Amino acid sequence: MKNLSRREMLIRSAQCAACAAAVSAAGLLWAPRAEALKKEEYPWPYRKIDPQKAAAIAYENYYKNGCSYAVTSGILIPLREAIGPPYTVLPLEAFAFGRGGVMDWGTTCGALLGAGIATGLAAGKKGEEILNEVINWYCDTELPIFVPQNPRASIKTVNKSDSPLCHVSVGKWMKKEGVALSDPRRKERCARLSADVAMKTVQMLNLRADGAFETKHGSQSMTYGITTQNNCTDCHGTAVPSVPQGGKT
Amino acid sequence: MKNLSRREMLIRSAQCAACAAAVSAAGLLWAPRAEALKKEEYPWPYRKIDPQKAAAIAYENYYKNGCSYAVTSGILIPLREAIGPPYTVLPLEAFAFGRGGVMDWGTTCGALLGAGIATGLAAGKKGEEILNEVINWYCDTELPIFVPQNPRASIKTVNKSDSPLCHVSVGKWMKKEGVALSDPRRKERCARLSADVAMKTVQMLNLRADGAFETKHGSQSMTYGITTQNNCTDCHGTAVPSVPQGGKT
Repeated sequence: MKNLSRREMLIRSAQCAACAAAVSAAGLLWAPRAEALKKEEYPWPYRKIDPQKAAAIAYENYYKNGCSYAVTSGILIPLREAIGPPYTVLPLEAFAFGRGGVMDWGTTCGALLGAGIATGLAAGKKGEEILNEVINWYCDTELPIFVPQNPRASIKTVNKSDSPLCHVSVGKWMKKEGVALSDPRRKERCARLSADVAMKTVQMLNLRADGAFETKHGSQSMTYGITTQNNCTDCHGTAVPSVPQGGKT
Repeated sequence: MKNLSRREMLIRSAQCAACAAAVSAAGLLWAPRAEALKKEEYPWPYRKIDPQKAAAIAYENYYKNGCSYAVTSGILIPLREAIGPPYTVLPLEAFAFGRGGVMDWGTTCGALLGAGIATGLAAGKKGEEILNEVINWYCDTELPIFVPQNPRASIKTVNKSDSPLCHVSVGKWMKKEGVALSDPRRKERCARLSADVAMKTVQMLNLRADGAFETKHGSQSMTYGITTQNNCTDCHGTAVPSVPQGGKT
């Protein structure tokens, strides 16, 4: 083999069309970006995608598999289409577990977890900074903003959660709208909110692709001396209990 | 091509050793489980792994990249070794974002998110049931249990978090141990706890592989009518605010 010149190798390869076709038919050849599957890449490549498209996919996919799957797929399906492997290998259903604040435990909003999975893969360490900004924006913004082309239900309420927790975010909204968790209007709110999170995340990923993303929000643990949200009095009233301070995870 | 018999194809392929070697040298052939990279599989295949090994990897990897990476890698590195692709394609650093309850926001314990990512990939819908059990066990168990072979620090406290939230879980422990977030003992506690979560998750994945996994814990939202933890009075005191009840996400 090593005695063959490059030219000879190319000639032999060309002659062996039947062999190449057989290998290809067996699914052993990736045409685009085959090198992406040779070994682990980190992060995976990113190309700018349309935030509106991500939002529309997230809205529709919320109704298929919940909020976490909605945002993961809203961002990663366009990247599959734009880039191919390794995105095509990843089963996006695997990330549905984040729904309802992780299997309905009401903890981190699953839409934010979907954003974290997508930014972790598509932007690595910089993606972590993007996620931090998205969480801060989520807490401080009246949501939902997105209006779908074909809404499944009409809703009248928007609210600022002041928390990245599903329980707090959806609980405040349910109370304001006066509906139960199982109400189609509650689902519509979470579908639209998923679209909002997908859109905001893609906007930041696109800024980063242009070299224009800037970190604004600092580290929660450096600010407070403990891993925490900003809404201390929601749980602690006015008397925030003291914990030993300082440091970073 | 379609006029070639299988025998003729095999003969031609064998004749074209140079071509095959060239393709292989270019990294276009996967020897083991090449079919796993043809398209998306869901879930990815699972083979029983050693819970102690998963725990030891999680403990060590906590010190490299935090709790979420620790548990994801504690489970998925042994699966990479046992199975190869598609596990080898996934950059595990992408899931470090869950640390400190997602980028230090103190929400879902990152160790639990690591478990969710691993179970979602390796067990699909059944993995969601496993995660629900792991979360319930985490809330109800005095942690950490794991004792490393070469501990980085000595700790004296264990505690039952009664919550899957990082802020609550680590905050209660810090208060009891009397240490700050940046203290090496706090890091040691979270490293050991990551090992515990990896071990428990693998034990359940192994039970499932044996057809012996049983769901015990029900749906939080079906029980409470809202996505939530069980520790209502931690935030709400004795007067739990009413929200419109009923249903499931």
